Amino acid sequence: SNKKLLVLPGDGIGPEVMRQVRRVVDWMDKRRHVSFDLQEGLCGGAAIDAHGTPLTDETMADALQVDAVLFGSVGGPKWDDLPFEQKPERGLLRLRKEMDLFANLRPAMVFPAMADASSLKRELVEGLDIMILRELTGGVYFGEPRGVETLADGTKRAVDTQVYTTPEIERVARVAFELARKRGGKVHSVEKANVMHTGVLWRQTVTKLHEAEGQGIELHHMYADNCAMQLVRYPKQFDVIVTDNLFGDMLSDCAAMLTGSLGMLPSASLGAEDPTTGRRMALYEPVHGSAPDIAGKDIANPLAELLSFAMLLRYSFDMQEDADMVETAITNVLNAGFRTADIYAPGTAKVSTTVMGDTLLRE
Amino acid sequence: SNKKLLVLPGDGIGPEVMRQVRRVVDWMDKRRHVSFDLQEGLCGGAAIDAHGTPLTDETMADALQVDAVLFGSVGGPKWDDLPFEQKPERGLLRLRKEMDLFANLRPAMVFPAMADASSLKRELVEGLDIMILRELTGGVYFGEPRGVETLADGTKRAVDTQVYTTPEIERVARVAFELARKRGGKVHSVEKANVMHTGVLWRQTVTKLHEAEGQGIELHHMYADNCAMQLVRYPKQFDVIVTDNLFGDMLSDCAAMLTGSLGMLPSASLGAEDPTTGRRMALYEPVHGSAPDIAGKDIANPLAELLSFAMLLRYSFDMQEDADMVETAITNVLNAGFRTADIYAPGTAKVSTTVMGDTLLRE
Ligand SMILES: CC(C)[C@H](C(=O)O)[C@@H](O)C(=O)O
Ligand SMILES: CC(C)[C@H](C(=O)O)[C@@H](O)C(=O)O
Repeated sequence: SNKKLLVLPGDGIGPEVMRQVRRVVDWMDKRRHVSFDLQEGLCGGAAIDAHGTPLTDETMADALQVDAVLFGSVGGPKWDDLPFEQKPERGLLRLRKEMDLFANLRPAMVFPAMADASSLKRELVEGLDIMILRELTGGVYFGEPRGVETLADGTKRAVDTQVYTTPEIERVARVAFELARKRGGKVHSVEKANVMHTGVLWRQTVTKLHEAEGQGIELHHMYADNCAMQLVRYPKQFDVIVTDNLFGDMLSDCAAMLTGSLGMLPSASLGAEDPTTGRRMALYEPVHGSAPDIAGKDIANPLAELLSFAMLLRYSFDMQEDADMVETAITNVLNAGFRTADIYAPGTAKVSTTVMGDTLLRE
Repeated sequence: SNKKLLVLPGDGIGPEVMRQVRRVVDWMDKRRHVSFDLQEGLCGGAAIDAHGTPLTDETMADALQVDAVLFGSVGGPKWDDLPFEQKPERGLLRLRKEMDLFANLRPAMVFPAMADASSLKRELVEGLDIMILRELTGGVYFGEPRGVETLADGTKRAVDTQVYTTPEIERVARVAFELARKRGGKVHSVEKANVMHTGVLWRQTVTKLHEAEGQGIELHHMYADNCAMQLVRYPKQFDVIVTDNLFGDMLSDCAAMLTGSLGMLPSASLGAEDPTTGRRMALYEPVHGSAPDIAGKDIANPLAELLSFAMLLRYSFDMQEDADMVETAITNVLNAGFRTADIYAPGTAKVSTTVMGDTLLRE
């Protein structure tokens, strides 16, 4: 097969939501004769328990070989006290960095059946569809120097460094303009140029690129604190938001929660297109985390992982029809009133993770 | 008088909201025989226009002499293109740093008359009362090295550095425990210990201090991205949130917007108590910014500045009765239905900045 997939379920609810995706993959194999060359691997706490490291070199090598990685979630209290470089999260961060997945697409959209699930008033979120584009391989997540040192007087001093270069900002801004062109034509570039030097360079670089390549795109600059406010005040003002790694982490979570559909939001992390092969590294994962408190109870919502798989079909394999099929099945199941506990509301039917999978397969 | 005040109205709507506070100060002078020794100075864009710098050394020296500073707001498009070190914001940042105002108290509360103004459903915010305690003199706002350099190939590289030491974290965490003791007894300490070394040190230090001095306080640790989510999902789970300078900037703005009362939220920035004199440096300012788009139109809401003044009376001069008086007048005016444009709703009376001041004085 020319469809090589690496599946990394990870920790917490990762494995159980991934199980439902595997059922859909099997179904596609039998019913639509789409065969994936699928490997499964360990990442995060699961890899620490088995191999003493959150990501083995072998799994890292596999990730670089395949056409796409489907990721679950990592982390949990069991591994909270590990030293920094051995934490479950390092597995995910290593994948992002070594696959050079600089463009993290996090759609925040409200499913029609879910508009009442938001903590915001219905009219503010109904029909909401924002794309948050988060820079994913730079900034404070990877900048050097970083670490904790003990000073002469016995106190400690910790340092993190945020670094951005012009090319790093340009390549993600370019993706923002491309996305906006296929959507509402509007980009908000978000930083703290009033306080941070990386923010100043970010703003200058995005402005310049917009002049050169942003024809027809409406560009706004916004401070990150104001953006957090504006997301709460009137989220529909946004189309595409492009921002750095750390701001993107917070703002995309905030936007995801606004939708009331957190358990249903997928994300895609993409690398640069190889100019000769046209190939692009890619990893897909739900926006939600590993939710250790509900893990193993068969109550987690598998829809975000399944929608991540649909994104994978769409972006990595150009399988539009199959992606549509998955997404339509999800819409139908929701319209028919099936809900996992996280999105349950009076008048709907509460189902387990597995039953949600059954229902989807029937659809 | 032993009540030395420095008033810095700043830019945008700063001067016009400050004018209403000055009227209240005059009233107190005449009617309650409280006399302040009040100086006014320039800061931000106003100081740039007059003196070529966002804060003169003279004004800085004044700020260090007085008992309290009442601040308006700084910044605006007119000064957006100035080089980094000359921006209006540097004036405010210099005050915070040189006065060593490490503890920034940002209450996010919903005024009963305003519960419907929130974009969140009424039941989620009614009676909300969170205290966000933001570290204000450390982190990425001041860490070195910082700047932008041009590389050999002509591209640029920008750097910001986040630094925290154990004593910096301890002193703000101590304030958090003190605040919680007088409130709901619960503290959420917020960082990104899964990604940042400053976050790891933050978590360790807060945990240790809690063991030593946090008797009776319920302490939770939370990642900053999750905190942004939880604020939107169910804000009433929080009592005191303590966090670093940058996370505090975003989270306090997010929380402020949740209340629907943004134009009404004050803040206090406090230094350490001088062990011999008991004196504590302090600066009070509204949470809202300079709002250049509505400046000079006599439509801005003066209540946040006035509530900042009430906080000043309470914290810097222990004038509880006078502070109560101001706050009660505000509650009464709101209950009577008076609203500036930002908080106007059908069925209330829309008034200008000046008329809001008149109404308050009558109360
Ligand atoms: C798990 C963690 C390292 C990660 C991040 O901070 O990027 C997560 O919060 C995310 O947003 O994907
Ligand atoms: C004006 C700006 C420098 C400031 C900050 O980022 O701290 C503001 O946003 C605030 O929150 O007081």
